[in-house]
Amino acid sequence: MSESKPVFYYFKSKALGEQSRLLMVYGGIDFEDYRVDYYTEWADFKSKTKFGFMPMLEIGGKQYAQSLAISRYLARRVGLAGDTLEEALEIDQNIDLFNEFRLKASDIFFETDEAVKERKYAEAVKNVFPDYLEKLSNIINENNGHLALGKLTWADFVLTGTFLFLKMITRIPDLEKKYPAFQRVLDNVYSIPQIKAYAEKAPVTDY
Amino acid sequence: MSESKPVFYYFKSKALGEQSRLLMVYGGIDFEDYRVDYYTEWADFKSKTKFGFMPMLEIGGKQYAQSLAISRYLARRVGLAGDTLEEALEIDQNIDLFNEFRLKASDIFFETDEAVKERKYAEAVKNVFPDYLEKLSNIINENNGHLALGKLTWADFVLTGTFLFLKMITRIPDLEKKYPAFQRVLDNVYSIPQIKAYAEKAPVTDY
Repeated sequence: MSESKPVFYYFKSKALGEQSRLLMVYGGIDFEDYRVDYYTEWADFKSKTKFGFMPMLEIGGKQYAQSLAISRYLARRVGLAGDTLEEALEIDQNIDLFNEFRLKASDIFFETDEAVKERKYAEAVKNVFPDYLEKLSNIINENNGHLALGKLTWADFVLTGTFLFLKMITRIPDLEKKYPAFQRVLDNVYSIPQIKAYAEKAPVTDY
Repeated sequence: MSESKPVFYYFKSKALGEQSRLLMVYGGIDFEDYRVDYYTEWADFKSKTKFGFMPMLEIGGKQYAQSLAISRYLARRVGLAGDTLEEALEIDQNIDLFNEFRLKASDIFFETDEAVKERKYAEAVKNVFPDYLEKLSNIINENNGHLALGKLTWADFVLTGTFLFLKMITRIPDLEKKYPAFQRVLDNVYSIPQIKAYAEKAPVTDY
């Protein structure tokens, strides 16, 4: 791999990009944090990308897409992806559970038919969200305030980076109060000195 | 890890489980292929699993869920997950693209409101499926009949294992004829001697 500085491209939000930014900050990977303006820049920029998707990581002149694939790569580079294959599996498994939940909420959030959207949201609030939130809370409480392995892994960065977005799409603004396990993960990540320093200076975003 | 024989639990279908079975067959991992009957066994069995999901892999007395997490673990064990971190990233990225497509088709397939389902299917056939199918075909053709890296990786096993299910949920029974790139991947996987021998004896399933 060329040693040129990696460039990370994402919108001016945390959503699906912040997890990777946080992993690079944690590991001291010097990167260019390129924030694309959705309104003025994205349409034109999209046509110049290989896949038409962000987040995108450019390393060694090559473009890579898909948020979790990028984060897993960064996690392996910075030592947060497990010490054995079985540890890596447990991390991936719990991230996929979290991601499944996020995708279900996301699908409803982006539904364009308002009537369908509200019906699906009402269903999910009753039958889908509580089950995921309880499962995830139990996992976090069994894992000492972490999403896997009872210690800091990239799963905690995925949850933390996505958290504001998750609260928006589930319409649960006090999620970390209703399910305090989530607050434990946030505290564990934001108390890491380099993450804390980054968060104090990073652009403020709504989600 | 205990060296007891792994047990792989899934329904009597290929769908999201076959990819892992094929990876174990490829790598000569001796495993128990436990096929759960959906109608007579699943409800009771589900309550005894840790997560309530299948596929599930039991290794060393521990249960793991999530199809892609399990397959990635097996792929790393059998040497099909890339030789460098960047190779692993490219494989993950292309699998996530394929999986995104599968999830979109799946969501429509499992929609319970018939009117919404047909409207969404019509939309997807016009605006969603062709884009993914072309992107994936291009990737395969650029990669010598493989989904990543121009060589055999676990991405080819994900595509191959899921293929009948994908044809069902997209309602494109001749998918490999309309997009011959997919047939190239299937041929590359099913021509591996141990996979060929397994496929000849494996239970016949509709999807």
